[in-house]
Amino acid sequence: VKGFDMDNRYAIGIDLGGTNLKGIVMDEQGQWDHLTRIPTEAHLGGAHVLERILELIEALLSKHGRRDDVVGVGIGSPGFIDRDGTVLGGAENIPGWKGTQVFAPVQQRFGLKAVAGNDVTVAALAEARFGAGRGINNMVLLAMGTGIGGGIVSNGHVYMGTHGMAGELGHIPVQRDGLLCTCGQRGCVEQYASGSGMVKNAYIIAAQAGPQEQTPFVNHVLYSGEPVTAKSVYEFVENGSDPVALRYHEYIMERLARAIGIVLNAFAPDRVVLGGGVMRSEKVILQTLARQVPNHCWAAIWERTDIVAAQCGQDAGVLGAAALIFDKFNACAPQ
Amino acid sequence: VKGFDMDNRYAIGIDLGGTNLKGIVMDEQGQWDHLTRIPTEAHLGGAHVLERILELIEALLSKHGRRDDVVGVGIGSPGFIDRDGTVLGGAENIPGWKGTQVFAPVQQRFGLKAVAGNDVTVAALAEARFGAGRGINNMVLLAMGTGIGGGIVSNGHVYMGTHGMAGELGHIPVQRDGLLCTCGQRGCVEQYASGSGMVKNAYIIAAQAGPQEQTPFVNHVLYSGEPVTAKSVYEFVENGSDPVALRYHEYIMERLARAIGIVLNAFAPDRVVLGGGVMRSEKVILQTLARQVPNHCWAAIWERTDIVAAQCGQDAGVLGAAALIFDKFNACAPQ
Repeated sequence: VKGFDMDNRYAIGIDLGGTNLKGIVMDEQGQWDHLTRIPTEAHLGGAHVLERILELIEALLSKHGRRDDVVGVGIGSPGFIDRDGTVLGGAENIPGWKGTQVFAPVQQRFGLKAVAGNDVTVAALAEARFGAGRGINNMVLLAMGTGIGGGIVSNGHVYMGTHGMAGELGHIPVQRDGLLCTCGQRGCVEQYASGSGMVKNAYIIAAQAGPQEQTPFVNHVLYSGEPVTAKSVYEFVENGSDPVALRYHEYIMERLARAIGIVLNAFAPDRVVLGGGVMRSEKVILQTLARQVPNHCWAAIWERTDIVAAQCGQDAGVLGAAALIFDKFNACAPQ
Repeated sequence: VKGFDMDNRYAIGIDLGGTNLKGIVMDEQGQWDHLTRIPTEAHLGGAHVLERILELIEALLSKHGRRDDVVGVGIGSPGFIDRDGTVLGGAENIPGWKGTQVFAPVQQRFGLKAVAGNDVTVAALAEARFGAGRGINNMVLLAMGTGIGGGIVSNGHVYMGTHGMAGELGHIPVQRDGLLCTCGQRGCVEQYASGSGMVKNAYIIAAQAGPQEQTPFVNHVLYSGEPVTAKSVYEFVENGSDPVALRYHEYIMERLARAIGIVLNAFAPDRVVLGGGVMRSEKVILQTLARQVPNHCWAAIWERTDIVAAQCGQDAGVLGAAALIFDKFNACAPQ
């Protein structure tokens, strides 16, 4: 049941990042055009960033060439944006963004409805509509970048909680008395399986290696002077012959598997999609998770789900932001 | 947006328990009548239980006096029932129930659509429509009985996952290397904060009390010969002067608070509703959780939610089962 006829209608999607603003014009089938990128200039403050968003919308409308078939603007943003368009926080890389009212200026200047979602939440919607979750009604995205974010699609619609804060799945504790997290808890999965967590634990595991275990992995991390990144350490894991690298990998994956097990038991989604830079090593990660996750959830749930890599890549944010407009208009429940 | 006009239409709600079947006839506003209870006779097997359900539907239709304004039958059941009405398992107290096809016979014998949900899932819907979650779009119920079950209402609708398995929130591990759980994991919150978990941990904590700590709580649990129940141990907690009882309470609540924190970060619901027998001691439980839960979730989420006691009591199952028919008909997304 559609809210109204949406054939040949278009949505503007905006992806707000700390460095760049990206925008597209997209129809409901996911055909998009006019990809535009401008610097966010976040250091100039929240009011300036809002003005940049309005400039980008203006540019996109101009490229599109008409306004009467554009139904709204969807915005993906780090942190939390409330239903009414007030930024509630959680986007520390954009000073002064908290407290900004985002929707009213869009409505006033362009007469367009605006909606917003957390960047990982809209990326989850993009995967559900156009990527690894196509045709899936119940899906969870874990985006493993610098931190770990979560996005939830339930009953075919994005789920963001009343104030846009749902999906903080990086802050599932998996280790009592574990590493201190930015959220104040200890042992959150983000401290292990995010890109930065992977680097941190590479040092910890390498330093614990005994004198008989001074492997190439240990040498790379502790003594080589080379930059240690999730990518660099996972090259040793993928190589498959370094026992400390493999122990390290099991250690990280056991903790990620615990968090995924909790997610499976809670949401029983048809699919878990894993995204972010660390999925460069998707083969070894998915193989190990397929062995470990069943230890941490009900068998009946495990048999009816799968874990796959994300497909939308860097475009997930802007595609999902545009898709959010159609999702909200097509929903029948208050969201 | 309603699927069709539902004024003065009725749903039959069935609550399947190991001992009794309960049924009502309810309208969409929650007015109900004809409460009927018959023995499940679960020991006679799944086919017999199905026949008992059909007998109960027949009796309710007969009491209602007409069939043309009855739109369907909602069934709340322990365990998991798939979208198509196949029992997938998880109801060990009803032998032979797994594999039963529940919907087809209802359709064939009465020409009525049937839907089903896990008993805690439908109880969550009852609380959202008629109880502690009235007017709330995003709500999570934790039912703390013999075990701990979860039920989720998202975007105003029940969320059960594609195969009816969502909401297994009792199996969130909160203690690495903790007590072994029926699910195969260790340290699930169910092993601490369910009724049976509370009893088990009362023995453990009492046995750890030193010679200077032989308090009335310790005496009751270890030496009195009186039955030890969640109710009996919580009388010592509520009394407020027994240091071992208070330490025991903090120990249980810290583990429950961890699980609730994960639920809050994941769902960011407007409200968490706690039900089940242990909520007899709701005052001391809610007070302690209000102090402990903020240690385990984002402040911005905590500020926008609350934790309250369930209101629907023993009727939650049968009310929620009936409400499920209206919820499914009024949903616009495939569920």
